[in-house]
Amino acid sequence: MQDIKINTERLWQSIMKMGEIGGTELGGCCRLALTELDKQARDLFIDWCTAAGCSIEIDKMGNIFATRSGSDSALGAISTGSHLDTQPCGGKFDGIYGCLAGLEVIRTLNEHNIETKRPVEVSVWTNEEGSRFAPAMISSGVYSGKFDLEWAWHQCDSDGVSLLEALKGIDYLGESEVGNRAIHQFYELHIEQGPVLEREQLQIGVVTGVLGMRWYDVNISGNSAHAGPTPMDYRQDALYAQSKMYSQIFELALADGVGDARCTAGEIAIEKASRNVVAGGVNSTLDLRHSQQASLDQLETDARAIINDVENLTKTQIEINKIWDSPPLAFDKNCVNAVEQVVAKSGLSYKKMVSGAGHDAVNIASVTPTAMIFIPSIGGISHNEKEYSSPEQLSAGCQVLFEVMRAQASV
Amino acid sequence: MQDIKINTERLWQSIMKMGEIGGTELGGCCRLALTELDKQARDLFIDWCTAAGCSIEIDKMGNIFATRSGSDSALGAISTGSHLDTQPCGGKFDGIYGCLAGLEVIRTLNEHNIETKRPVEVSVWTNEEGSRFAPAMISSGVYSGKFDLEWAWHQCDSDGVSLLEALKGIDYLGESEVGNRAIHQFYELHIEQGPVLEREQLQIGVVTGVLGMRWYDVNISGNSAHAGPTPMDYRQDALYAQSKMYSQIFELALADGVGDARCTAGEIAIEKASRNVVAGGVNSTLDLRHSQQASLDQLETDARAIINDVENLTKTQIEINKIWDSPPLAFDKNCVNAVEQVVAKSGLSYKKMVSGAGHDAVNIASVTPTAMIFIPSIGGISHNEKEYSSPEQLSAGCQVLFEVMRAQASV
Repeated sequence: MQDIKINTERLWQSIMKMGEIGGTELGGCCRLALTELDKQARDLFIDWCTAAGCSIEIDKMGNIFATRSGSDSALGAISTGSHLDTQPCGGKFDGIYGCLAGLEVIRTLNEHNIETKRPVEVSVWTNEEGSRFAPAMISSGVYSGKFDLEWAWHQCDSDGVSLLEALKGIDYLGESEVGNRAIHQFYELHIEQGPVLEREQLQIGVVTGVLGMRWYDVNISGNSAHAGPTPMDYRQDALYAQSKMYSQIFELALADGVGDARCTAGEIAIEKASRNVVAGGVNSTLDLRHSQQASLDQLETDARAIINDVENLTKTQIEINKIWDSPPLAFDKNCVNAVEQVVAKSGLSYKKMVSGAGHDAVNIASVTPTAMIFIPSIGGISHNEKEYSSPEQLSAGCQVLFEVMRAQASV
Repeated sequence: MQDIKINTERLWQSIMKMGEIGGTELGGCCRLALTELDKQARDLFIDWCTAAGCSIEIDKMGNIFATRSGSDSALGAISTGSHLDTQPCGGKFDGIYGCLAGLEVIRTLNEHNIETKRPVEVSVWTNEEGSRFAPAMISSGVYSGKFDLEWAWHQCDSDGVSLLEALKGIDYLGESEVGNRAIHQFYELHIEQGPVLEREQLQIGVVTGVLGMRWYDVNISGNSAHAGPTPMDYRQDALYAQSKMYSQIFELALADGVGDARCTAGEIAIEKASRNVVAGGVNSTLDLRHSQQASLDQLETDARAIINDVENLTKTQIEINKIWDSPPLAFDKNCVNAVEQVVAKSGLSYKKMVSGAGHDAVNIASVTPTAMIFIPSIGGISHNEKEYSSPEQLSAGCQVLFEVMRAQASV
């Protein structure tokens, strides 16, 4: 295989140009799904893809598929893609990188007159962020059969505008049915949105799967009491209980051998809080994650044991309700191997890792062999105007994607 | 000394009658300081005291002094008293009991035609609760020279009404100067507002002093991060830091040998809290108390050491600001002994204890020999409509007060 390089500068300029649409003063991007700005971004993407010789198809969820033909049109495409919408205070890279790196793959193939056996395709998935319409990843969800099309169409934004109305409003309600495209493999290239690659000074993450995740509401009932007249051994302090519980479950996750356990309490509130009153009730959230189903089960079992001990120690009642359970996902082994082989040959530094966050690829993986590729995000910062990856980092990931897609499209 | 008993039923009926003024459906009382309801309560109190032969004096803070003459008018009075105002959702006993038990002492002396050498006096202190005008105990504060009269007069309620305007509004701006009354000793009888006497099945608390108290604001800076992509060992979780800190300081106070240490975090907030985001910043309060100055100093020193360790462990910065420092108070030894001798002779079960909460007696103690007497509060509940002490419990405390005052007024 020839030593062909993608065009680092062209990729960077495309990302910068796209970032002007909804660009913010602080260098981020505010481009909510199916707004006028999203329409501008979609139009620009389609212009670029059309100029690169792709055919364009839009489905009933507004998902865009830009396809470069292969020599054997009976074969399924090697597909890549991500999303063009952003968080309200988002960055220029999350999602956008995956779409424009796909375009760069096609441009590079064109530049070198490379004909692939299979079609090569870039997709844009509508409303990945979930900032305008809930839930996140709704369109890849409909694509994979997880959500019903009619249901998704009738999800409304905070102004009461339905997703269907919004699609029509920017003229992106396509005619193709959602799902069942002839896709042979799907690869999503994305910024890590975490600190690992940067801290470990690695260039590429070969993503083997996605953490399973369980969300809980934790309600602790103690006994509200005066801070002064109530001796310590008489107290049923719900905040003491929460503190004992959270620090122990946190340390349980910290001690996980694989390093894939996660424990987060992101919200907490004391009922009728007052500086000199012992907390009678504390409501908090708990988010537990792990890459392995058995380990996630064990994490929950151990967390529940800690909670029982804490109830006894602190003389409180702790109610724990599981409100969401998303199992761990392992990406397709062949796809993961395809990525790892390219990376290993390339001499880029890398590690195999799991994604802690959800991506469209998680939905696609349920219907098509899928894998993901990560590049470092500076400071692990994302969903933030400070989100950044350097031209070199972006280029390295795109080069991997190019080689994987080219190789896989040839067989 | 004759075996004279106070009238349990009369005391109970007086408390019940007073409780009708501002009485709530749930059996509590809502009678904020210097409101029309407070005026009704004051008028009733003065009517009762006048009927009991007392002279009435009102000072410029609206404090009421009802005095039963002694045989030697040159001697300072043996004084008791508390307050008639309540919290917005308060009970019928907190404060009111101390005033009406004082009245019952005088009624009992009258009934048995007992002449004392010293005058016997009952006082009502304005705005003890602090619910309408800040700070709490403002009038005993002015009395003891802690606060300036003009400053106190210009404290405003949430509607912008000044304390002076409120005094005038209900016609309780007296002419006497505030302070420097001829009081020989002051005894305040109060419900415990804590669980100790009830749990230990004791009838009387001989109060030897009041806990010293320090209030802190604690601000923890960590690093906000996605709950999924951020491995545990990369986190700077401000809530984990708060949890480690609070549980350790709580346990430090719990292990206090004397049992007088207190540690309370009553308020907590995560900055920009979100269920799946690691807490980047946590603001909380800390309330440390102890009966001994040296122990309170040590408690703070040890807490600061814990905070340093937690900063290092959790890779966070913890800023701790002391916003209030009230030293421990020891009541007058002679007054405490006078109470203990009566209780010991009476056969009532008792313990010497400290008050965790503030009372008017704390202010009076700085200018006059003072002690306090506690009776059990059911469930330790106070500042609550469920506040309750039984007629027998109220009677036992009043009997002790009667005997202490009678004895001390005779010498």
